[in-house]
Amino acid sequence: MRTVDLIQKKRDGHELSTDEIKWLINGYVDGTVPDYQMSAFAMAVYFKGMSTREISDLTMAMVATGEQIDLSAIAGIKVDKHSTGGVGDKVTLILVPLVASFGVPVAKMSGRGLGHTGGTLDKLESIKGFQIEVSQEDFISQVQQAGLAVIGQSNNLVKADKLLYALRDVTATVDTIPLIASSVMSKKIAAGADAILLDVTVGEGAFMKNVEDARLLAQTMVDLGKAVGRKTVAVLTDMSQPVGTSIGNRLEILEALDILQGKGREDVTEFICELAQIMLGLAQVEKSLDEVRQHLQDGSALKKFEEMVLAQGGDLEDLYRPVQVEHQLPVYAEKSGYITALPAMEFGLFAMKLGAGRAVKTDELDYETGLVFHKKVGAAVVQGEQIATIYSNENISENMLTNFQKNVRIEDRVVKSKEIIEIVS
Amino acid sequence: MRTVDLIQKKRDGHELSTDEIKWLINGYVDGTVPDYQMSAFAMAVYFKGMSTREISDLTMAMVATGEQIDLSAIAGIKVDKHSTGGVGDKVTLILVPLVASFGVPVAKMSGRGLGHTGGTLDKLESIKGFQIEVSQEDFISQVQQAGLAVIGQSNNLVKADKLLYALRDVTATVDTIPLIASSVMSKKIAAGADAILLDVTVGEGAFMKNVEDARLLAQTMVDLGKAVGRKTVAVLTDMSQPVGTSIGNRLEILEALDILQGKGREDVTEFICELAQIMLGLAQVEKSLDEVRQHLQDGSALKKFEEMVLAQGGDLEDLYRPVQVEHQLPVYAEKSGYITALPAMEFGLFAMKLGAGRAVKTDELDYETGLVFHKKVGAAVVQGEQIATIYSNENISENMLTNFQKNVRIEDRVVKSKEIIEIVS
Repeated sequence: MRTVDLIQKKRDGHELSTDEIKWLINGYVDGTVPDYQMSAFAMAVYFKGMSTREISDLTMAMVATGEQIDLSAIAGIKVDKHSTGGVGDKVTLILVPLVASFGVPVAKMSGRGLGHTGGTLDKLESIKGFQIEVSQEDFISQVQQAGLAVIGQSNNLVKADKLLYALRDVTATVDTIPLIASSVMSKKIAAGADAILLDVTVGEGAFMKNVEDARLLAQTMVDLGKAVGRKTVAVLTDMSQPVGTSIGNRLEILEALDILQGKGREDVTEFICELAQIMLGLAQVEKSLDEVRQHLQDGSALKKFEEMVLAQGGDLEDLYRPVQVEHQLPVYAEKSGYITALPAMEFGLFAMKLGAGRAVKTDELDYETGLVFHKKVGAAVVQGEQIATIYSNENISENMLTNFQKNVRIEDRVVKSKEIIEIVS
Repeated sequence: MRTVDLIQKKRDGHELSTDEIKWLINGYVDGTVPDYQMSAFAMAVYFKGMSTREISDLTMAMVATGEQIDLSAIAGIKVDKHSTGGVGDKVTLILVPLVASFGVPVAKMSGRGLGHTGGTLDKLESIKGFQIEVSQEDFISQVQQAGLAVIGQSNNLVKADKLLYALRDVTATVDTIPLIASSVMSKKIAAGADAILLDVTVGEGAFMKNVEDARLLAQTMVDLGKAVGRKTVAVLTDMSQPVGTSIGNRLEILEALDILQGKGREDVTEFICELAQIMLGLAQVEKSLDEVRQHLQDGSALKKFEEMVLAQGGDLEDLYRPVQVEHQLPVYAEKSGYITALPAMEFGLFAMKLGAGRAVKTDELDYETGLVFHKKVGAAVVQGEQIATIYSNENISENMLTNFQKNVRIEDRVVKSKEIIEIVS
């Protein structure tokens, strides 16, 4: 086999065989297929796509290039959840203990944030003492005992994805569905889940800018999951505005605690209960929305969260402490009307600049900083009314503040927002 | 500027600016743009193409990455000729002295053969003593005195093309017109010509498999030549069968000597006279076809060829010596009828296996071996009649002989062949 022939085959729109895909991925990982051939191949995939069979083969070939977590010591159906990335997305923090409170084990590996998007690991690490680096034995034993754990993804999973992702990032081959789908799913499969809930975010602040692309990605991953024997459901969720009210690591922990106590915003609470219901269904535990919500009201979900925090070394007293920043700057509505847009990307980048996120991987975070929105899309506002608060450890310039205000679009019409756009299964 | 943005711009079908193209090519040559980005860019060009302006900018940016030959010391309009590669293509050997015999200086740099195609340099080197490595000073002074020289291309021309060509070869990005056109034209422009005749070969044995692609490549190079101030004419020529009667280095020298003496096949003689007329026209010397042909009949062209051979150290006595091989094997017609096809690629590879060509760049040649066709497409043949001779220094197996015969297609219909398909200017 010659790599150039496989590139040409894809370039000319033909399907690669299972063996050809395996050969390519193994060669890439062992260094016999160089980056310059893989990037040309990725660009050919960008233009010519891949069949479901090819994507499944690619995914499983990638899975085989790294460690595969064995969760069989944990009884029951293990359900994993993945989000394609969002702004203010604290969903995992609530969803994991909520699902675990029904006796469904959740053994989850999470990632860090980059650019305008946050990462669950960073949020958990903002809890004093919380450990995300946990050995595989301790991880499994924690899930056996407490029923849940969220830890950092092993560096040994899916070696091919690490190489390929870094390459795609610098060769304009990131936004191609076969490669996104195989990247996401290979990590979930290697992480050992039996069933997978995919949260495919859509909108200006997300990877997928429109519903059509998001639907295609979701369907591709669902088909792929089925083809490789993992029950998979995808939910398209709105990322045109930040999720919930806060952006920032500790600010989002505090909002998660509110939601876990049934005191969160109604829209995000309902959204999370719907996701929990789907995850429970994947684990063959059928519950009504009211039953799910009951576990927020009665403290069962919160109790699970606290159990996890304790099990992973977190300080429960510090957990509920308000954020500590030098400046809490109110932001006022520029005019009266209805909020019609809160562009997630813009506010994600704004929070990043405050230290809540990373411009590059090596940036250090300031866990305390961020944004809180008191009004969201659809809300009526009066000129001069406070709509948000900026939590910062540096002075906010007039220019930054004006920029923030400009990004809060206020018009004379009411826009309805909707968290779950569509379920793909 | 970031390379990834330029790749994306091309991927999305937009035009790159002059500065962007310069930046990319300079970065590639100085190593700041790595191979893996350039190969992704090349694949994006494969799918999205380039405008004439972009191709011109690319070509001139490439030219600037290497030495540029200054032919200004040679009086008159310097016309260069380039062929996109053929089988049995000895045209340059005759065309250069024929044009020079009219007082038009020809300072030509040539290349070697690879795969099924031969190279003018190899053919010249089959002449005992002939030197193709000549300093630039000696090159210019030879053209000033003798009016012609054919030497090896300087290794210092168009550094970007060397890198890019090697990369394209292994990333399935060879057959894309903007990159072929810029590769060919950058070398011609760097070699210092004022005007360029392009012989774009078409057919199964050529780079361009059909007339439509060949026409597009020809038009692209002609437009590009005009855009950068070099008068350019392209001729689409048939490469469905080998050019003339012979394939093989010394065999082709001997055929060239025949043609130079007016004793060659009529079709190839007329074809070369037509090309010479166009080249002379590019140098503003208008001649009729009869006047051109006269220089073959009266020995003027042959005299120029011998002058060049002498000037470059070649042995005139050895020049006319017949080939020396261990086996001269006749090939007979399998049946009666008309020859309808002599697939150039197949016979080019056959000759390569005899040692007349290289499978890889480092292969050594056997100058004496090759093939001679006594009948070509359109000829009537009788079963058992000799149609070709194989010149070999190794035994020819029954299998090889049968394979040769199978490739000579004989049918009950007459196919007309035509050397010049079309002129693009």
